[in-house]
Amino acid sequence: MLPNRSSKDGLKIIESESIPRHAVMINGLPDVGLVGLLAASHIISFLKLREVGAIESDLLPPMIVLHGGVPKAPIRIFAGNELAVVISETVIPGSLIRPLANTLVEWAGENGVRLMVSLGGMAVSNRQDIDTPRVFAALSAKSVESQLNGAAEVLEEGYIVGAYGVLLRNCAQASIPAITLLTQSHYNYPDPEAAAVALTAVNKILGLKVDASELLKRGEEIRLRSKDMMHRTHEEMNRMNKSHEYDLPPLYG
Amino acid sequence: MLPNRSSKDGLKIIESESIPRHAVMINGLPDVGLVGLLAASHIISFLKLREVGAIESDLLPPMIVLHGGVPKAPIRIFAGNELAVVISETVIPGSLIRPLANTLVEWAGENGVRLMVSLGGMAVSNRQDIDTPRVFAALSAKSVESQLNGAAEVLEEGYIVGAYGVLLRNCAQASIPAITLLTQSHYNYPDPEAAAVALTAVNKILGLKVDASELLKRGEEIRLRSKDMMHRTHEEMNRMNKSHEYDLPPLYG
Amino acid sequence: MLPNRSSKDGLKIIESESIPRHAVMINGLPDVGLVGLLAASHIISFLKLREVGAIESDLLPPMIVLHGGVPKAPIRIFAGNELAVVISETVIPGSLIRPLANTLVEWAGENGVRLMVSLGGMAVSNRQDIDTPRVFAALSAKSVESQLNGAAEVLEEGYIVGAYGVLLRNCAQASIPAITLLTQSHYNYPDPEAAAVALTAVNKILGLKVDASELLKRGEEIRLRSKDMMHRTHEEMNRMNKSHEYDLPPLYG
Amino acid sequence: MLPNRSSKDGLKIIESESIPRHAVMINGLPDVGLVGLLAASHIISFLKLREVGAIESDLLPPMIVLHGGVPKAPIRIFAGNELAVVISETVIPGSLIRPLANTLVEWAGENGVRLMVSLGGMAVSNRQDIDTPRVFAALSAKSVESQLNGAAEVLEEGYIVGAYGVLLRNCAQASIPAITLLTQSHYNYPDPEAAAVALTAVNKILGLKVDASELLKRGEEIRLRSKDMMHRTHEEMNRMNKSHEYDLPPLYG
Repeated sequence: MLPNRSSKDGLKIIESESIPRHAVMINGLPDVGLVGLLAASHIISFLKLREVGAIESDLLPPMIVLHGGVPKAPIRIFAGNELAVVISETVIPGSLIRPLANTLVEWAGENGVRLMVSLGGMAVSNRQDIDTPRVFAALSAKSVESQLNGAAEVLEEGYIVGAYGVLLRNCAQASIPAITLLTQSHYNYPDPEAAAVALTAVNKILGLKVDASELLKRGEEIRLRSKDMMHRTHEEMNRMNKSHEYDLPPLYG
Repeated sequence: MLPNRSSKDGLKIIESESIPRHAVMINGLPDVGLVGLLAASHIISFLKLREVGAIESDLLPPMIVLHGGVPKAPIRIFAGNELAVVISETVIPGSLIRPLANTLVEWAGENGVRLMVSLGGMAVSNRQDIDTPRVFAALSAKSVESQLNGAAEVLEEGYIVGAYGVLLRNCAQASIPAITLLTQSHYNYPDPEAAAVALTAVNKILGLKVDASELLKRGEEIRLRSKDMMHRTHEEMNRMNKSHEYDLPPLYG
Repeated sequence: MLPNRSSKDGLKIIESESIPRHAVMINGLPDVGLVGLLAASHIISFLKLREVGAIESDLLPPMIVLHGGVPKAPIRIFAGNELAVVISETVIPGSLIRPLANTLVEWAGENGVRLMVSLGGMAVSNRQDIDTPRVFAALSAKSVESQLNGAAEVLEEGYIVGAYGVLLRNCAQASIPAITLLTQSHYNYPDPEAAAVALTAVNKILGLKVDASELLKRGEEIRLRSKDMMHRTHEEMNRMNKSHEYDLPPLYG
Repeated sequence: MLPNRSSKDGLKIIESESIPRHAVMINGLPDVGLVGLLAASHIISFLKLREVGAIESDLLPPMIVLHGGVPKAPIRIFAGNELAVVISETVIPGSLIRPLANTLVEWAGENGVRLMVSLGGMAVSNRQDIDTPRVFAALSAKSVESQLNGAAEVLEEGYIVGAYGVLLRNCAQASIPAITLLTQSHYNYPDPEAAAVALTAVNKILGLKVDASELLKRGEEIRLRSKDMMHRTHEEMNRMNKSHEYDLPPLYG
């Protein structure tokens, strides 16, 4: 049993087990189309990762998840196969995103994480007309581009709203290589197909062989089970003006 | 006169009298259909419990209650008959729920509470077609099931939004046996009939004989007097997305 | 020049001059019909009170008032004639009301205030049909009733939302006699006529002779000049559910 | 490399380079018509000022800006030519405005800033009928009027909502001469023409020769590129009731 770790930002990571040194960290937080949450949850299931910790904060919305009759925290960490995967079954309020990013990046540094891959969606209004969504990457530094293995197109200019932008900048400041993968997706509908495309890019970057076919096969069921989570996520994204990003370059230049 | 107790979370419990050791604690906070508040208030009246404390916080909404011309705090503790009952005549803002749960569970631990029973509602859209609402129980641990005496059906999977989920998880972590009783009820109308059913379950669990018939007899009056409290509660539940819970199992599994 | 005083609650009272010992303190904060703000501002003008302090907080809305080309704080204290009058030209956000009440009552205690009179409105839907609004009083203790001189009807049961309820309870705890005068008024329109009635009650309680006729004569102009303040106040009162109070007695009893 | 500076208010200014002593500080924060942001961004481009610092806070909205593939903070400081220019590419939440103003004014004092000029818009409903917007000035003190060089009309009475009012009052208290220039503009559409007029006033006050013609020539492009920033700014201004200001004098007098 490891001791609790407390952060100065009102968040704490409670670990029941250490994660491996030099792991790749994958973040699947609720976001556009739930792309990251669906993809990361599938990685956890497919690779049978173990639950090794939880992230707690009094600033999180007041909710818990019952699993097998036992009350659980909604943000948890799973590990195995040189991976540490963070998923959240609750929406992260906008005001908690910077503190959460601080805590995650600090924790990644202490655990010697060698690469942080964050999985998100990029809303496109004509999603239904797109067969194969494109995958874009925002990087903590130019030098990280070599690790992409051509899995995504690099973004040069624009705003990134939400956890994935702040994680990127924090990683840049902490010199942890980081990739934010943004896959074209529905804004406001769970998009398991986009999650499957994101998984393919993750496989390519990390040399994994996670089979994404179940995400496609169980698409309808997943959409139904994640409808409420999408609903809550949508409201918070609106509060953060998440829908107004990427499309316009900044003002000057 | 006991000294004030201060919590690190911006809440304090001010006690004018100690509660009995090894008491059962009952929480009646405003929630779906006001089931818990109505049931707990009736327990206080029926058993003639004494006011023994108040919970104060600068983070509570700015309001007070006049009783007999005297200004009172809206969250108070009553005791007697090996019971400690907490009721709130104000809505608890979402941001205060985790701190409140921390304070209550810590206080329960210090006072040797042997069981915490929280009374809430579970919204059903076809409430008017239901004669006898069903009662569900979420538990702090599997082992608590034996204390239910068959008064409720056990919940295995799902989200619990609001104070009662967080109280459950906190109790689990503090090893205090806890039961959250959720009685089918109207979402947005005070539901004294559901409160009466909840009371029957409480009687069965605790071996009490609180007569619930007055809740039914005075139903119309109670609905009228608690209309405003329901209105405020409704708004806060919407802010917490309380209406979107229970119905969907979590994502993976 | 007196030193700044800091409060633990994120508010500070900056005094340029001391108020007299044993003064009566009058609070005119923006509220239903702006009754208190209009009445208190008129007392300041009529009695030519001096500006002696300001209340500052980083938690106040970001705004200032220009007076004669000079930027001023929106909450200020005026004194003279054994009176200390607090007015606010900005809406007090709900979250700041308890800290503000703490600060004011603590400051009143240190300055030996002998009576605190808070002026507010009580919304009535048929205000236009009422010639002479009634004045109600909520008291910090039964014993204060003798100081009313019959100027108002005493309230026994009900909710009081906003600063005036919290001030009352804080005064009760600090043993400072306090009266909250609530004059029937429009909810959402500035009501100089109700302010004039409130002034008459204040005159009766304190033995003052403030002529209220100008409030009636300049009614139209005052309504126009305070339209924006009313608009902001209205929004904050809605956030606090201020419109839902008084009318219903609490649940049990 | 200079050390980070931390503020007690949850904001910190991170400087990569010092600004010149006795500089004039220009603030271009998002506001009515984006007048200040557009004008200040143009000053930075035209005078080729260097990026010398960033203002960071966990209380800012969770977003970053990608410039040339590198993640950047949204509030940054540029310097050169005895100027220090602060621009924000993110909306400042109302709750962060007072702390930001505290931090900026304290920093200005430490760096011996000799004049602070803040650029804002003043919404006029008939903007489309106005060929040459008028420029108004609110001053930290009467004595600052001589530095205006007739570039603006002085405001005597009224409310100022948002950062520019608070900056003015803080400068008054810190004895730093300050001018808030408010140029008539659209409320809710980016107004490069108003920004050009504001620039002309800045030229006159500071003896600069910044050519504003590009703001007019590229007007359409600028409107398009800043549409989203305007959208976010609009929402925050509404939250602060920014549209309800200036037009009405305060209550008494």
